[in-house]
Amino acid sequence: MAESAMNHEEKLDKLAEVAVRVGLGLAHGQQLVMTAPLEAVPLVRRITEHAYKAGASLVTTIFGDEQSTLMRFQHGADDSFDTASKWLYDGMAEAFRGGAARLAIAGEDPNLLAGQDPARVARANRARSQAYLPALELISGFDINWTICSFASSAWARAVFPNVSEEQAVAKLWDAIFAASRVDRPDPVAAWGEHNAELRARYSMLNAKQYSALHFRGPGTDLKVGLADDHEWAGGATKAKNGVVCNPNIPSEEVFTTPHRARVEGTVTSTKPLSYQGTLIQDIAVRFEGGQIAEARARTGQDVLQKVLETDEGARRLGEVALVPHSSPISASGLLFYNTLFDENASHHIALGQAYAKCVRGGLSMTEAELEQKGANRSLIHIDWMIGSDKVDVDGVNADGSAEPLMRGGEWVTKAA
Amino acid sequence: MAESAMNHEEKLDKLAEVAVRVGLGLAHGQQLVMTAPLEAVPLVRRITEHAYKAGASLVTTIFGDEQSTLMRFQHGADDSFDTASKWLYDGMAEAFRGGAARLAIAGEDPNLLAGQDPARVARANRARSQAYLPALELISGFDINWTICSFASSAWARAVFPNVSEEQAVAKLWDAIFAASRVDRPDPVAAWGEHNAELRARYSMLNAKQYSALHFRGPGTDLKVGLADDHEWAGGATKAKNGVVCNPNIPSEEVFTTPHRARVEGTVTSTKPLSYQGTLIQDIAVRFEGGQIAEARARTGQDVLQKVLETDEGARRLGEVALVPHSSPISASGLLFYNTLFDENASHHIALGQAYAKCVRGGLSMTEAELEQKGANRSLIHIDWMIGSDKVDVDGVNADGSAEPLMRGGEWVTKAA
Ligand SMILES: [Zn+2]
Ligand SMILES: [Zn+2]
Ligand SMILES: [Zn+2]
Ligand SMILES: [Zn+2]
Repeated sequence: MAESAMNHEEKLDKLAEVAVRVGLGLAHGQQLVMTAPLEAVPLVRRITEHAYKAGASLVTTIFGDEQSTLMRFQHGADDSFDTASKWLYDGMAEAFRGGAARLAIAGEDPNLLAGQDPARVARANRARSQAYLPALELISGFDINWTICSFASSAWARAVFPNVSEEQAVAKLWDAIFAASRVDRPDPVAAWGEHNAELRARYSMLNAKQYSALHFRGPGTDLKVGLADDHEWAGGATKAKNGVVCNPNIPSEEVFTTPHRARVEGTVTSTKPLSYQGTLIQDIAVRFEGGQIAEARARTGQDVLQKVLETDEGARRLGEVALVPHSSPISASGLLFYNTLFDENASHHIALGQAYAKCVRGGLSMTEAELEQKGANRSLIHIDWMIGSDKVDVDGVNADGSAEPLMRGGEWVTKAA
Repeated sequence: MAESAMNHEEKLDKLAEVAVRVGLGLAHGQQLVMTAPLEAVPLVRRITEHAYKAGASLVTTIFGDEQSTLMRFQHGADDSFDTASKWLYDGMAEAFRGGAARLAIAGEDPNLLAGQDPARVARANRARSQAYLPALELISGFDINWTICSFASSAWARAVFPNVSEEQAVAKLWDAIFAASRVDRPDPVAAWGEHNAELRARYSMLNAKQYSALHFRGPGTDLKVGLADDHEWAGGATKAKNGVVCNPNIPSEEVFTTPHRARVEGTVTSTKPLSYQGTLIQDIAVRFEGGQIAEARARTGQDVLQKVLETDEGARRLGEVALVPHSSPISASGLLFYNTLFDENASHHIALGQAYAKCVRGGLSMTEAELEQKGANRSLIHIDWMIGSDKVDVDGVNADGSAEPLMRGGEWVTKAA
């Protein structure tokens, strides 16, 4: 079928197929645990169909309703905000221990809680993060295959395209999602195969180098990000511990690894706004000392940023550093998506908080103490923010202090092998 | 507000209020675990709002999507049908152990699985029943307050009113639900108070009598249902073990108790069709010997009925007997709802399978062995079917064999005190 001949329904079906075959690599007999916003029902049903065709033993979708979430803030008692549905997250963890795969459909209204009491929002988030931690550890530790893809909900579309009608906004957001997810290609599954091969060539090169640090330089940025001992770069397809190869993010353009929690020095300025729980945090400027944020400012949302940094000890340290060429499709769109899945794939980024165990060699079978020994950070949060642009250069720094140019003007200096 | 002035939205809100205040009696600080069909979102949101206003610490709704259920039967592998989401039901059980209340919104398409392989439907049901059992035992044992109410989904409405447009069918079904749920009264909460007082007077009289059996006589029916030792009649409001008074069924017209699993003798003919998993089982005719079904026939759906009876040993014995006057509002509507919540409240009924522990004196704190000693039946199933009409008479039989008329022509012989 020619690209131009695909209508919306066909693209939606291709997205579902990519989510199941590329994203999850779902194996015959696996249960699938899906989470989705209510509005995403049409995509949920297509994914459910592809999952059963791929041999799923059972697909269970937990729908989230943002209007119900809002009602808690509007009508709930003040003493209610430290409660989370731990029983549900523990159930999900049990499903993963039993071998279930995990698919999340993103499509949140980035402004849902914008008008609510930030202290209550923070309490609810904290309770939720703590309750979710056991399930999240099984996911981020790749005990099972998992993926995230997205649905163009109307509230999200309105936020990305505020100056057109809602109908146009939704159509434009779908175009962006389909393009970034490689679903508008004649053979999306094959396109993902090529893309994964390119990312693999790139991270293999970086793994061979074993730089001791990355050095970012640009307007307002002069930052040395020390890398964890035995750090491992990753990107695109990942083999989970259950042996299944999955693509945890649809789309994904980054190669990323684990910084050393105690070896980050210098200043860095964000290059795109960070949308966090309905608050836009703009022009973040931060100074690191000994791996820790010693000073943090933001032009907007500074109080929310401060609250985030106070979450726990690890919230002031880095858990991820990622490289994304400025020419990546999502960056080229020039859009701000208010959604990490997209925005982190538009630019180099660093993440406050939790590190990925898989980005330390042998890390997936290490204890927490062993991971910390290597320099991997630990926190309830993992918040990515963008530090790349065509004006940011990146050097790889060797153990002896010598530097090699990695990226110039936002692009790789060498072609992927 | 005058009755006639309430529009649909106001009645829906009243139904939500009745569900939270009368159905659940939700206490401040309780979590609420709700299950609902996707189509019921408008009612879910109103219940969520009333629950938060009543002090819920968190409302979590697990939505079911019938289209996704159907996809499993259409595309799933044959080896998938013995799988159930045990992780989710175990999570719900954990929530109940932690004090959460439970609300179920009924609104299923009675014909959803009508075209599917009955063997697969039976396997899926069996797996689901087994996985759900720990949660169900906490519910039916009244460890927590719980209720069921309903939503007029379009598929359900089409089944009840096949000869009008879907829009008209939905409107008619809503009228029936609102009336049966006493939501069309000027003060629905007060109306439930009066109704509960009447049911209490009726079951108190029956408890004082402690009949050894009920004797049903009518066309095709001459059945003696022995009652469990120390049986207790119940109806309407119930005090759960957590001290909260709830109304487990909205609507509810029945008074009911536990038969003796080994003391049912004679023949009985159903007076209304039983809708079971998309199959209409009509004109059931059964002969009991020593409490067990010795012979069972049905004019339609006999193979499905046989499969049901083979579920386990307890599936051939009775777990409930209930009395409902022929003049009850649901019976007076003359409709077949294809939904137990309504149909069982239109007529005397008996249930194959699991008994209610609360219908044995002290039963909620008895072991299974102790309950069985009293005569209470145990099974994975609990399926109610209708045996009442204006032509069925009921006697109470004393331990010495003497009989007293209880109901004649479908109505109580004495007025409730
Ligand atoms: Zn990243
Ligand atoms: Zn990240
Ligand atoms: Zn009943
Ligand atoms: Zn029953």
